[in-house]
Amino acid sequence: MRNDLELAAVYVSDAQYNRNIVFDTSPQGVRLYMLYNHWGLLALVYLLIIANLALALFEDPALFPLPIWVTLVTELICLMAFAGRLFHFGRVVPRDSFWKDAKNICIIVIISLTLLDMVIFGSLKAAGYYGVRWSRVLRPLLLVNITEGRQLRRAFRSIRNALPQILYVFLLFIFSVLMFSLMALKLFGKRGLKTKDGSPYFTNYLQIVFDLYVLVTTANSPDIMMPAYNANIFFAVFFIVYILINTYIFMSVFLAVVYNNYKKYLKEEVRQLVRAKRCKMARAFRVLQEPCGAEPVVTQARWNQLVRLVQPDISSAHRELLWSVSDTEKRGHIGKLAFMQLPDLLNIQVITVKSRPHPLQTWQPTLYSSTASQFICRMVKHKAFVYVYDVIILLNAVFIGLDEENSLISNVEWLFLGLYLLEILLKLYTFEPRAFFSKHQFWNWFDTIIIVSALISTVINSALKSTGGYSSRQILDIVFILRILRLIRVVDSIKRFRTIINTLIKIGPTILTFGQLILVVYYIFAMVGMELFKGKVRFFENGSTDSEHDGYTMVTHVSARIFFVLFHIVVVIIIINIFVAFVLEAFFVEY
Amino acid sequence: MRNDLELAAVYVSDAQYNRNIVFDTSPQGVRLYMLYNHWGLLALVYLLIIANLALALFEDPALFPLPIWVTLVTELICLMAFAGRLFHFGRVVPRDSFWKDAKNICIIVIISLTLLDMVIFGSLKAAGYYGVRWSRVLRPLLLVNITEGRQLRRAFRSIRNALPQILYVFLLFIFSVLMFSLMALKLFGKRGLKTKDGSPYFTNYLQIVFDLYVLVTTANSPDIMMPAYNANIFFAVFFIVYILINTYIFMSVFLAVVYNNYKKYLKEEVRQLVRAKRCKMARAFRVLQEPCGAEPVVTQARWNQLVRLVQPDISSAHRELLWSVSDTEKRGHIGKLAFMQLPDLLNIQVITVKSRPHPLQTWQPTLYSSTASQFICRMVKHKAFVYVYDVIILLNAVFIGLDEENSLISNVEWLFLGLYLLEILLKLYTFEPRAFFSKHQFWNWFDTIIIVSALISTVINSALKSTGGYSSRQILDIVFILRILRLIRVVDSIKRFRTIINTLIKIGPTILTFGQLILVVYYIFAMVGMELFKGKVRFFENGSTDSEHDGYTMVTHVSARIFFVLFHIVVVIIIINIFVAFVLEAFFVEY
Ligand code: NA
Repeated sequence: MRNDLELAAVYVSDAQYNRNIVFDTSPQGVRLYMLYNHWGLLALVYLLIIANLALALFEDPALFPLPIWVTLVTELICLMAFAGRLFHFGRVVPRDSFWKDAKNICIIVIISLTLLDMVIFGSLKAAGYYGVRWSRVLRPLLLVNITEGRQLRRAFRSIRNALPQILYVFLLFIFSVLMFSLMALKLFGKRGLKTKDGSPYFTNYLQIVFDLYVLVTTANSPDIMMPAYNANIFFAVFFIVYILINTYIFMSVFLAVVYNNYKKYLKEEVRQLVRAKRCKMARAFRVLQEPCGAEPVVTQARWNQLVRLVQPDISSAHRELLWSVSDTEKRGHIGKLAFMQLPDLLNIQVITVKSRPHPLQTWQPTLYSSTASQFICRMVKHKAFVYVYDVIILLNAVFIGLDEENSLISNVEWLFLGLYLLEILLKLYTFEPRAFFSKHQFWNWFDTIIIVSALISTVINSALKSTGGYSSRQILDIVFILRILRLIRVVDSIKRFRTIINTLIKIGPTILTFGQLILVVYYIFAMVGMELFKGKVRFFENGSTDSEHDGYTMVTHVSARIFFVLFHIVVVIIIINIFVAFVLEAFFVEY
Repeated sequence: MRNDLELAAVYVSDAQYNRNIVFDTSPQGVRLYMLYNHWGLLALVYLLIIANLALALFEDPALFPLPIWVTLVTELICLMAFAGRLFHFGRVVPRDSFWKDAKNICIIVIISLTLLDMVIFGSLKAAGYYGVRWSRVLRPLLLVNITEGRQLRRAFRSIRNALPQILYVFLLFIFSVLMFSLMALKLFGKRGLKTKDGSPYFTNYLQIVFDLYVLVTTANSPDIMMPAYNANIFFAVFFIVYILINTYIFMSVFLAVVYNNYKKYLKEEVRQLVRAKRCKMARAFRVLQEPCGAEPVVTQARWNQLVRLVQPDISSAHRELLWSVSDTEKRGHIGKLAFMQLPDLLNIQVITVKSRPHPLQTWQPTLYSSTASQFICRMVKHKAFVYVYDVIILLNAVFIGLDEENSLISNVEWLFLGLYLLEILLKLYTFEPRAFFSKHQFWNWFDTIIIVSALISTVINSALKSTGGYSSRQILDIVFILRILRLIRVVDSIKRFRTIINTLIKIGPTILTFGQLILVVYYIFAMVGMELFKGKVRFFENGSTDSEHDGYTMVTHVSARIFFVLFHIVVVIIIINIFVAFVLEAFFVEY
């Protein structure tokens, strides 16, 4: 009985969070699987992955050098944890499906190769030889291959599926660059023109191809066209046509193709997800069903037990609401169709309509209902309250702009901090605190976190100043950033801005997946780049997309050029375009 | 009778070309209106507008200086022609609708102001004073306000309608830039950092705002972040977040908003066009209708007369085809509904299905049907023929890449030219010439024009060389460009590429409207910029969008910065985004 409920709860929870794992359905298997999905273990895995990735900061060539044994031991601990996690997973899923899953093989290969690399590197170092930690390129792949990297894998799959279409446009684009380069060679090569630094202009075909490729990014514009332009003003036409075709038309076509394909494949993925979800809910139903007339049903009692197991934190009122939505005819039991809705119902953010009474109302009813108290509440709810605080924020902006060395102005900051704190306290007095801090109240959380952090840092800073006359630059920096972030609140007062900001906030979670995608790609490029150009070029790890522009003036070696062009193709043409396509889609849907 | 037909023909022609002019329907009025729409007059108007715009090349500060009186007289001739055209228009349309039309008032104001400016400028010059030809800013507005500038006006209207939405996002974007600038001031201003040239780094708020605005275009990246990055590597995070939010997210949101709004308003415009077209066709029907049973009809005889008048160049076979499409029940007359389709039928590019016999077949039937002749035809139609020429083109590309000073290689060029000529002649021998050169055979036209031009220029070049040993660089340039353009043909052999290229060719005509739009905006900016920064900065007229980046390092005056930021807003944020939106839309529809 209990085992059945647990099994059904696991199915529902899998459907709710789009997990797609075939697990052993014996009671121990289910419990092992529940442990595998425990949030604590998940958090630990992500923490270790971050630690493993962050090792690059401490390894040669390092920002903060640490002894080699420290990084090696840390990595070993991470690898052992990942191996343990994988072993746990092997116990959860049937043996044959474990070995059929490419993800598991990937992790095993990554761990083995990394261990091999560590042994080789350690021995080389011990013997005093030079070694390369080549397995570092594999680290971000763990992020892709862990069980929880579903979204990221989906994004990579969509990219892989869009690749053939992108490839055709890319070949055409390269053809266009090659043709223009040939034209440039013929037009400018024989004219004996010189660049700014006196070297011959456009005489080497491969050099021209590279320069014109970089011109697509507008990084070397207008320098690259100046010698031709100075020779004859009409040569500008050549570059205008080039930029028009290759920067504007081709880059737009890339965006169009990426957008179209990415959307198409993502839709297919979503369709598969919905199918998998239905399948899981059907299994859960089969476990809990009881015969009743022609069709099997699930009774309210079992349903209640199930929901309490799946989501222990929801109130019984909320649970009753969900039941009444499922059992519309009030028969005390529901059929398969109504049961299937459960994961979607659980995922809905129910905003409690009936407001709970304020805790002060229950604790001190006379005081809270007094005229003065009622006046405060009405005042806080009034529109003018928002406007007054908007004016305060704008005044604050002016004071921030002024010189903070002046003691009067730094004292005024205390006043502003007090006013902001007062605002939060007044709102907490007026509104029910749990409603005020509910999940969807983004700006309330924003204000409170900013103000409390600002208060703490300002107090620490003042304490440091008054004790030793010493003011920590780091803490001051944090205080300034917090103060300025507080100013952002003003845009929420204007409805039009709020719409735009809310759309941006809504696309936030998916941007996180993109963040991981970009992290993986940048990390691999950074590791390869670091080994290739160590000491030869100043490389901005995880930095601006323009790093290739700075690099290319310093590194003239062919391999460096190939590396940077590859980086541009992957990051700008594919990743950035998918990001733009994604923001476009979100805005078309939301705005 | 004849008058009625002419009136109906004018209505149909207006519907076909989306003209929307209320004209005097008297017989003389109709004839005057037909004269007004004559292609010769239209061509003259566009020629004079181009001449008028091109005057800027010959005026101070000029590329090719001409005496002031020459440019003044030329402009006077243009103005008189525009005034004459407007007078003609005034005779065509009713008096009150003429004065109600903003376009006409605009042209009158532009002509008057330009005349005034010319008089003032002339007198000042005559008296030896310094004068500014401020009315030059108005010149491109003629292109917008002439009767035929419909498409351009529609584009400007769509932009104007999208402006409020763009404005809100723009304000939010500026707010973001201001906040980041404030943060930068507080974070970096007190650190005593220095830029590469030793000036204080990020100490002036307005300077920071400008620098960070330019960073959005990535023009000053990564230079602008280097001092902070060198001081503390973690400051890179500030710039990464800045670029992420302001370059990637905001620029994508701009694109999304521009795309959404432009599409919305363009749809509305198209709906209005369709309504106007129907209204005109209803009028044409009313003129030609004859009673027949319950509903009025148009007989085939009148319909034939009408079509012959509207489009004299279509064959009677084609006309009969159109009639059979309209009169599906073969009753010899059509009702209003079938009549309304006429303009759409006329606009359809009918590809003649039944191929006409080859002229040689009629002229020399025995010879053309001989085995040898049939073999040639089969050979040309064979797939291998295309492949052979693809290989020839690729070989040609290699030879072009080699040094043309070598006499062997320059002789090989004659061989390639001969081979290409042979290809065209063989195709003309095999395919019916009129079918070969029909409107939709883009690549046949392309090949023939390129090869014939290449032949002519190569012959001229050789003649010059053999007579005086002198080789004109200009003609050589043209020869090279033609040779390389010929190589483009190779992409047409690969089906995937052809799809993409065909989409690009299809969006060609609308790109022309964009070209005009950009010309108008650039011209106005160029004229204003020329007067403001004459001699102070090297300005690239109609040049790359990056002109502001080069300018900004040289011109540090505030007005120059405002000018360049304005230029960036108008050109990049609005025009380029509309262009990208437009390419996207075209690809979503076509691809
Ligand atoms: Na740039």
